[in-house]
Amino acid sequence: MPHHLQQTLALLRRTPASLNALLRDLPESWTHHNEGEGTWTAYDVVGHLAYGETTDWPARAKMILDHGESKTFTPFDRLGQTRSSQGKSLPQLLDEFAYLRAQNVVELESLNLTPEDLERRGRHPSFGSVTLSQLFAAWAVHDMTHMHQLSRILAYQYRETVGPWEKFLGVLHCDGHSSPA
Amino acid sequence: MPHHLQQTLALLRRTPASLNALLRDLPESWTHHNEGEGTWTAYDVVGHLAYGETTDWPARAKMILDHGESKTFTPFDRLGQTRSSQGKSLPQLLDEFAYLRAQNVVELESLNLTPEDLERRGRHPSFGSVTLSQLFAAWAVHDMTHMHQLSRILAYQYRETVGPWEKFLGVLHCDGHSSPA
Repeated sequence: MPHHLQQTLALLRRTPASLNALLRDLPESWTHHNEGEGTWTAYDVVGHLAYGETTDWPARAKMILDHGESKTFTPFDRLGQTRSSQGKSLPQLLDEFAYLRAQNVVELESLNLTPEDLERRGRHPSFGSVTLSQLFAAWAVHDMTHMHQLSRILAYQYRETVGPWEKFLGVLHCDGHSSPA
Repeated sequence: MPHHLQQTLALLRRTPASLNALLRDLPESWTHHNEGEGTWTAYDVVGHLAYGETTDWPARAKMILDHGESKTFTPFDRLGQTRSSQGKSLPQLLDEFAYLRAQNVVELESLNLTPEDLERRGRHPSFGSVTLSQLFAAWAVHDMTHMHQLSRILAYQYRETVGPWEKFLGVLHCDGHSSPA
């Protein structure tokens, strides 16, 4: 397997367990509060990540391999996660994310992709031609974007409780550029 | 135990395992690269968190309980972690952080603090009078600041690899306000 893909998979493999260790059985005062109207809770973030494993990222990888640039990726369904999370608890969503991610990584490994495969191209609805390598890298950085957002959402719940420390705690000064991508 | 302290401890308890799941045995191309000169690697962040458990946060809590506002906290030693991490591998630092944090949480629980205790005050070298409750909250949000920083450091390693996705991945546009606090 190309070195670069190994690196990407190493990170993709670890995200679910890291979120699980942080969020499972954490009081709902942390996990079910957002950063204000129209923003996400930690619960929403996990639902978004789990939903992304069912369609978004793996489907786009498949589309590149099967159709190259002849077919444009389907835009992500931003309401999909709301439907798909309905009635599920946070532990259920954490399990779902872990299960689906593990499956996707195994499937990816079984493709035995070559360095040449990673340069194959597909068509993104917003920014046109992209490589398979870029797609995999973006999938991993998408995880990091949501980990970044998650640490900010949790910190936000204590923005007043920290008193004068507020000034020195950088995460409380993040302007939300890490909103869902 | 006051409800608010329970909440804080729930988060403090979980950070080491979350970092461990993310970083243990992750390739060094992720963990040993920073965001440019004078910035930290993931390895440095874990060293900083482990070092903070030996002196900074628990020592300040003790100082409030023992001396109230009559003694000013010792300023954090920003070079302390460099000395204390020397020669240690990332897995060693992860173990150290987990061990020290668990010890500190158990010790905190054994104090059987009351809501009144949480309102006791100490003196911070920069911003004066603070409560024990604010100190504990800041300790937890300090974890989140470094998780926020960590996700940004990891994402940074792929800032070029993601190609045109760079524009849409929020974490790549964080300006580093989450630098060590």
